[in-house]
Amino acid sequence: MDFASFLTSLATSFILFVVLMLLFTWLSRKPGNKEVYYPNRILRGLDPWEGGSGRTRNPFAWIREALSSSEQDVIAMSGVDTAVYFVFLSTVLGILVLSGVVLLPVLLPVAATDNFMKSSNDTSKGTFNDLDKLSMGHIEEKSPRLWAFLIATYWVSFVAYYLLWKAYNHVSDLRAAALMSPEVRPEQYSILVRDIPPPPEGQTRKEQVDSYFKAIYPDTYYKSMVVTNNKKVNKIWEDLEGYKKKLAHAEAVYAESKKTGKPEGTKPTNKTGFLGLLGEKVDSIEYYNQKINESVSKLEAEQKVTLGEKQQASALVFFTSRVAAASAAQSLHAQLVDTWTVMDAPEARQLIWPNLPKNFYERQIRQILVYVIVALTILFYMIPIGLVSAVTTLANLKKILPFIKPIANIVAIKTVLEAYLPQIALIIFLALLPKFLLFLSKEEGIPSESHAQRAASGKYFYFSVFNVFIGVTVGGTLFDSLKEIEKDPKSIVDILATSLPANATFFLTFVALKFFVGYGLELSRLVPLIIYHLKRKYLCKTEDELKAAWTPGDLGLATRVPSDLLVITIVLCYSIIAPIIIPFGALYFAIGWLALKVYVPSYESYGKMWPHIHTRLVAALVLFQVTMFGYCGIKKFYYTPLIVPLPILSLIFAFFCSKKFYRFFQATALEVACRELKETPNMEQVFRSYIPPSLNAEKVDEDQFEDAASQVSRSQSFV
Amino acid sequence: MDFASFLTSLATSFILFVVLMLLFTWLSRKPGNKEVYYPNRILRGLDPWEGGSGRTRNPFAWIREALSSSEQDVIAMSGVDTAVYFVFLSTVLGILVLSGVVLLPVLLPVAATDNFMKSSNDTSKGTFNDLDKLSMGHIEEKSPRLWAFLIATYWVSFVAYYLLWKAYNHVSDLRAAALMSPEVRPEQYSILVRDIPPPPEGQTRKEQVDSYFKAIYPDTYYKSMVVTNNKKVNKIWEDLEGYKKKLAHAEAVYAESKKTGKPEGTKPTNKTGFLGLLGEKVDSIEYYNQKINESVSKLEAEQKVTLGEKQQASALVFFTSRVAAASAAQSLHAQLVDTWTVMDAPEARQLIWPNLPKNFYERQIRQILVYVIVALTILFYMIPIGLVSAVTTLANLKKILPFIKPIANIVAIKTVLEAYLPQIALIIFLALLPKFLLFLSKEEGIPSESHAQRAASGKYFYFSVFNVFIGVTVGGTLFDSLKEIEKDPKSIVDILATSLPANATFFLTFVALKFFVGYGLELSRLVPLIIYHLKRKYLCKTEDELKAAWTPGDLGLATRVPSDLLVITIVLCYSIIAPIIIPFGALYFAIGWLALKVYVPSYESYGKMWPHIHTRLVAALVLFQVTMFGYCGIKKFYYTPLIVPLPILSLIFAFFCSKKFYRFFQATALEVACRELKETPNMEQVFRSYIPPSLNAEKVDEDQFEDAASQVSRSQSFV
Repeated sequence: MDFASFLTSLATSFILFVVLMLLFTWLSRKPGNKEVYYPNRILRGLDPWEGGSGRTRNPFAWIREALSSSEQDVIAMSGVDTAVYFVFLSTVLGILVLSGVVLLPVLLPVAATDNFMKSSNDTSKGTFNDLDKLSMGHIEEKSPRLWAFLIATYWVSFVAYYLLWKAYNHVSDLRAAALMSPEVRPEQYSILVRDIPPPPEGQTRKEQVDSYFKAIYPDTYYKSMVVTNNKKVNKIWEDLEGYKKKLAHAEAVYAESKKTGKPEGTKPTNKTGFLGLLGEKVDSIEYYNQKINESVSKLEAEQKVTLGEKQQASALVFFTSRVAAASAAQSLHAQLVDTWTVMDAPEARQLIWPNLPKNFYERQIRQILVYVIVALTILFYMIPIGLVSAVTTLANLKKILPFIKPIANIVAIKTVLEAYLPQIALIIFLALLPKFLLFLSKEEGIPSESHAQRAASGKYFYFSVFNVFIGVTVGGTLFDSLKEIEKDPKSIVDILATSLPANATFFLTFVALKFFVGYGLELSRLVPLIIYHLKRKYLCKTEDELKAAWTPGDLGLATRVPSDLLVITIVLCYSIIAPIIIPFGALYFAIGWLALKVYVPSYESYGKMWPHIHTRLVAALVLFQVTMFGYCGIKKFYYTPLIVPLPILSLIFAFFCSKKFYRFFQATALEVACRELKETPNMEQVFRSYIPPSLNAEKVDEDQFEDAASQVSRSQSFV
Repeated sequence: MDFASFLTSLATSFILFVVLMLLFTWLSRKPGNKEVYYPNRILRGLDPWEGGSGRTRNPFAWIREALSSSEQDVIAMSGVDTAVYFVFLSTVLGILVLSGVVLLPVLLPVAATDNFMKSSNDTSKGTFNDLDKLSMGHIEEKSPRLWAFLIATYWVSFVAYYLLWKAYNHVSDLRAAALMSPEVRPEQYSILVRDIPPPPEGQTRKEQVDSYFKAIYPDTYYKSMVVTNNKKVNKIWEDLEGYKKKLAHAEAVYAESKKTGKPEGTKPTNKTGFLGLLGEKVDSIEYYNQKINESVSKLEAEQKVTLGEKQQASALVFFTSRVAAASAAQSLHAQLVDTWTVMDAPEARQLIWPNLPKNFYERQIRQILVYVIVALTILFYMIPIGLVSAVTTLANLKKILPFIKPIANIVAIKTVLEAYLPQIALIIFLALLPKFLLFLSKEEGIPSESHAQRAASGKYFYFSVFNVFIGVTVGGTLFDSLKEIEKDPKSIVDILATSLPANATFFLTFVALKFFVGYGLELSRLVPLIIYHLKRKYLCKTEDELKAAWTPGDLGLATRVPSDLLVITIVLCYSIIAPIIIPFGALYFAIGWLALKVYVPSYESYGKMWPHIHTRLVAALVLFQVTMFGYCGIKKFYYTPLIVPLPILSLIFAFFCSKKFYRFFQATALEVACRELKETPNMEQVFRSYIPPSLNAEKVDEDQFEDAASQVSRSQSFV
């Protein structure tokens, strides 16, 4: 790729971005779109337009609002996890800005004024381009100018240490503030107990759990909820909810038909067979009413069976004080460490019930299996990605598909294709993966959604770094110069050295594309807008259906964080080799900061994502430092070993941070949990918040729920 | 070493053993020696002679008693740690016996009847000897007979897994039983808090600690004891105790002189200068009385200063219930993980006070430094040991010291020298190290004596394995055949293969020597007996002095365990290569079981030694399996890769054991701590048991101790 195609790519993305922003400005002022653009405000019952006095909203006011809204507002609106993500973005932005203000004015002139490449490459094949003049590749071997690059490595590292340290401290405070809040949060009063041994003869699970914890915590133990196998009851409940929705839909259709058609209306009908396409034609309202009645009685029967007979080796245990729960979640309870294992209870909404009763060793084995599968995925995706990045250069395409030659020779198309082809292939490729990784993470037996997301995020990060960053760099190079390596295997080092600056342009474009097109699409919310209007027009009949159509999704941190981490890894690694990448990276993280107002987080883990992010940022830093060591070595710089202390320093930094902060992210510190509350918690409410909806039908009142469990327990103990 | 010298060595050690045992029989029957032979019984106020009816004790009755005394007796007499050591001995004995009963009848005939060596070595230099006929080295390459050795490897491994598993389970039960005992043990009511941050303005340490824990544990918090810098007060107290002892001694001398000499007696005198050799001559009784008075007032003043002004960043915190203390010791207390770190309080008697206030990071740095020093020690001791083992073969000695040639040529002396020289050098060498390692371990900042002993034991084990086992095997070989390796570096593998069976004889003798002479000396207790009688005759004048002279020492697990582990490592590694080593190993561990009755353990860690032992036993097993893999490979056995699953299985076994049992050895399980007590604990007594003797003078009564601390605190807070 030469300088022209890079500029073209930049220009086209920028134009696309401007168009999307204009669209956004226009669309977001239309009242009919307010649900898509301001869902968060509507969900909270606020007026979507700031001023409220009939004035249509200025989109820049929205940006101003985003900039001016304090962290406390973010936490109040979207929770600690979102605030932590903002800390991540601003920390990375800080690193890039502080690095950029020193590196750009210093390193670019230092590189551009060196005349090594000019003299030595005059006779070469002209692969050298204007962009590369601004990179470290332009510096002569052994040149004293390399000192500037070495010192810059130190500068970037120390900026990163300082800001990461501050961020960890800050996130720890955010977490502490949330955990010591005077509000009652049910998850702070409960612990999750797993690996309960088989109950002794003549005792039910519930009696076993109750007597066990009552003996240890005579004063603070409240109640337990034994985890049950809800597969069947959930199925019935989902069917019931489905019928209810369909009934509401059918009634809305009927009501509408009264208004538009005959005054008595047309009763909607449906077929009972496969997908509503086959079978008998029936009156929908009657049919669904009957189905609902059937399901309700089936549900009640199944609820009793589930509560009584499907108790499993796991339980939620509730305490009357936060300190007792926090302390219990950290203490070893049983002499045999693999029984009665305890942990902080996750929020009720993010519990993965089917995973709770999984045995300790089953979890271990599942984890190992999943790791093996992920490792295989990472390794074997490398081959296709390597091929994609090697094949989708225009020169290669022309060789392989000769019929595109005439088209590809038109200058405009050629430049656009050259600029975008490999990047688009890569981005589509990566979009397929996250769901698979999340599925695998859940299969590990992880008990909570947020933990599974973190696990998936970690896997996705390793995948990205290995396949996109290392895969593209080495893969592209290998393909280009396989023959050279065949002749002399040692030349691989030199090839890597030349390939790093060459790939800089690729990754520069990659970052720019992610920024302009990715964020442009996200900010404009074109896709959700179109889907919403289509649904509103043709599908949604009831209020609930409409709300479901515009309610925004989760932040999706499981994919967002690793792809951001990939960008910062790339930007860091190239920050010295080709400092021109820094402004693009900085823009990427600056805009990311604005784009998140519309999401509603679907869980709260009180910032447990941060240590995960922190570790990977430090890993990116180490990769950067090692890369710089290698690259300085290739430049035959005499003082290259001076970089060696840096990776060591990074490891010490990581160790230090982990020792100072990490355990607080695994467990709740007691000094935090012992803060006073606004009111005495309503323990019954805390307890009930954990009853899954399928077991919590309106008809079954509190006493019955308790009774059902105890009655069946008692009757069982006589069997 | 040939077969004759091996037999000589065996015979001489055996004779020595018999002589020592006869001595023991004779000496232990003399009433004047009862304190040395039955100190445990006397300390507990029991009659040293079993029957008690004037009958002199039969030494074999003692053995019978040792065999018949149950584990409960051992725990009652000497605590859980001693019982755990017995479990270790019996487990290892079990492994060796179960291996031996299969391996000896099978492998010895298989090896002896192979005629490979005979035919191929007829022409060699005659290095081959009768003993080697019974070893695996005698098997032909690629012989199908190697199957027997491969299967034997599996047999030994599975026997070890089974018995180690049972032992871990058993030790865990022992620990649980001790921790759930209805007796009040002060250490179960207290936790050790370290890394306390600087107290806020206007608060003393004590107020800070009290308010912090009162907020978290309003119901179960009892009191705290801030750790003070006791260096000065300890010095004064030790001086005082010294003067008291000297006064008692002087009075005893005076009383004796009245009886033996003039009726008015001779007043003892001493010189006040350096070591009592220089300076003014004074009346001892008067002088020491004066000194005592001086010290008492100095001590009282210093106690006040210490309690008030020398409070440091560490404290012992007491709770009114075992569960509260056990749970507090495991919970994270502070948001910043490196402050308010907590752990189970060790017993008062084994606290290392100067280490308690050491900062978290200081501990880390000290640990790293100590590890570096230990690693250097391990590596650089290898050179002298290698030299010792290479030089102290008689042939080498004759070369280096030609003047011993005439002596060394006398057959009897030659054989004895050949048999013992290298082993004695090695044993003396190893005796110098443990104190140094214990010192280093304490320098790490470890808070308790038993933990420091474990740490020292680990270091000593690594040292032993690296230097004795690997060092001697490779070192001896390297020296013998350095020239061959110079010619062809690849020959090192073959040299190793031949050196393993050659060194078998060395280690066989080593084990036999340790067994016959080491245990012979220990059982007969000749050294303590001689020292006791010398002291009784010439030094001891008072009852206290006499008691100090016969009171037996600690078990010395810090050196005993690693040297036993070294023996089992050696025996395991040679168990298949030269199965004849097994009976010697079995005897070693069988006798070790008998030899421990006379020691009084100086601390109790409730079996925390076991995971340490277990890990190293598994490590020895892995070393054995890897050795077998290497050796089968050298024998060019086609099915050698079948051994590969074994080390993997060992690692899985270690992982499984650690997951099932380990954490209970780090912390007290709450289900154990919640057992009922015989009586409500006297918390004041629990608290006072932790006051160091130097701060606990008789004159300062309970209220005063409290008052002193609080008064000074209050007055300080106004400064």
